[in-house]
Amino acid sequence: MVISIIGIGLIGGSLAISLKENGFATKIIGVDKNKDHIDKAYRRRLIDDDLSLSEAIDQSDLIILSVPMDSIVSLLPSILDQVEHQIVMEVGSTKASVIEAVRTHPKRSQFVASHPMAGTEFSGPEAAVPNLFDNNCVVLCDTEHSGKATLEVIQKLYTSLNMQMVYLNAKDHDIHTAYVSHISHISSFALALTVLEKERDEKRIFELASGGFSSTVRLAKSSADMWIPIFRQNRENILDVLEEHINTLSKLKNLLTENDFETFHKLIKKSNQIERILK
Amino acid sequence: MVISIIGIGLIGGSLAISLKENGFATKIIGVDKNKDHIDKAYRRRLIDDDLSLSEAIDQSDLIILSVPMDSIVSLLPSILDQVEHQIVMEVGSTKASVIEAVRTHPKRSQFVASHPMAGTEFSGPEAAVPNLFDNNCVVLCDTEHSGKATLEVIQKLYTSLNMQMVYLNAKDHDIHTAYVSHISHISSFALALTVLEKERDEKRIFELASGGFSSTVRLAKSSADMWIPIFRQNRENILDVLEEHINTLSKLKNLLTENDFETFHKLIKKSNQIERILK
Repeated sequence: MVISIIGIGLIGGSLAISLKENGFATKIIGVDKNKDHIDKAYRRRLIDDDLSLSEAIDQSDLIILSVPMDSIVSLLPSILDQVEHQIVMEVGSTKASVIEAVRTHPKRSQFVASHPMAGTEFSGPEAAVPNLFDNNCVVLCDTEHSGKATLEVIQKLYTSLNMQMVYLNAKDHDIHTAYVSHISHISSFALALTVLEKERDEKRIFELASGGFSSTVRLAKSSADMWIPIFRQNRENILDVLEEHINTLSKLKNLLTENDFETFHKLIKKSNQIERILK
Repeated sequence: MVISIIGIGLIGGSLAISLKENGFATKIIGVDKNKDHIDKAYRRRLIDDDLSLSEAIDQSDLIILSVPMDSIVSLLPSILDQVEHQIVMEVGSTKASVIEAVRTHPKRSQFVASHPMAGTEFSGPEAAVPNLFDNNCVVLCDTEHSGKATLEVIQKLYTSLNMQMVYLNAKDHDIHTAYVSHISHISSFALALTVLEKERDEKRIFELASGGFSSTVRLAKSSADMWIPIFRQNRENILDVLEEHINTLSKLKNLLTENDFETFHKLIKKSNQIERILK
């Protein structure tokens, strides 16, 4: 199967590695408006060829959209306009807006919305890694609007990547990911800003920061170009979760102010329960 | 050298492993009021003997206090009362209160306050691991009040653990650790509580949570018994940092509310600078 990957970054590049390695793709065509990315993708041997978007669509069996979220929403309708037999899939982090953008499109059945729950804090073709998806979960959304044969190809693709498939509607997906992914990024960005703002002595941070600090701020290295579109698309759900998170932090702050360490102790015990649901 | 370790948990137990392994200790005596810990410490072969506190002091060259922070503060003066030639060291996460507790003690020069910047989210003797301290940093505080020979022993000990020594006064230590350690724990506890509170569908969290979420809430598995005393001792510094962190999150929330993604993009770029100072 010839696969075009639109956007050869962390996710697109990692898909390129794994789908070629496991034989699902016979040829990977890269499409990226950033020429540096195409050059790097060749040097990393991620792609076999690079073409313009319309040439790539013509020559492919499957087109995977792995550009930032707002570009997925704007590109998808015109790509579906151009397809004949081809299947189109996107791998973005929000779902409501992208699915709404093609809701009434005549080729809707040739499209599958998916979200592989895998990534790192790095970006670009140089961030592509083997086995990124292995044993992780992928969400397939609103699959009742995808054609049966189309869906089966995508299911085979994710099975070939050793991913567990979960089926959700777009609305539920966007709420859940606000909790299990988007708020973690906002928390890390804020923590990094807080420490950089107040702790001017960077040498000391470098010396003293141990694994715990690195762990909580690791995501603050993530790409603004990738995350701003996600925050824009999932703004309302994220605002809900962020407000709740600020309230929780304010509650902990009040307990400290009032020296109520008994209640604080109980809340830590409660938060320990996260262990049960973390891998 | 015979070493007594008061509190055979994550830190005490890991010290027991490494100091016996590298030959710095000829014998490790465990002291722990929790009989379960002593039993586990024997089964993990962390200790050679267990004794009462006063017997352990009598038979040791070095006494290491690795109990929760409030117990360190309350135990230290009476331990110093009992020593003759022995050296006493504590490895707690805050410094001002413990150093104040023995400021005028006649045996002050036989005591060294230290904070190895290493740990995990687990606790108890079962959490003890080899090489926990390797290549990490240890802070030695107010060393001008420790005797020269006493300090040299502790420097040799940390050199044997392959740790880099940093010298700070207690006040600065407590401010810095509020930023690079304590706030990370509060942020993780709060994030876990937020998600557990609102995301009632635990199966979904389990399925969807990827590495990013696990990374930011990992510290929420940490022990309440260990962290409440730290928050109590370093309350004022933590309140300062926590207030700043809540302000930063509120600022990000306002940007979302106002759809000001341009400023949000700039702030993410700024937070990316944390990369420069993370290992």
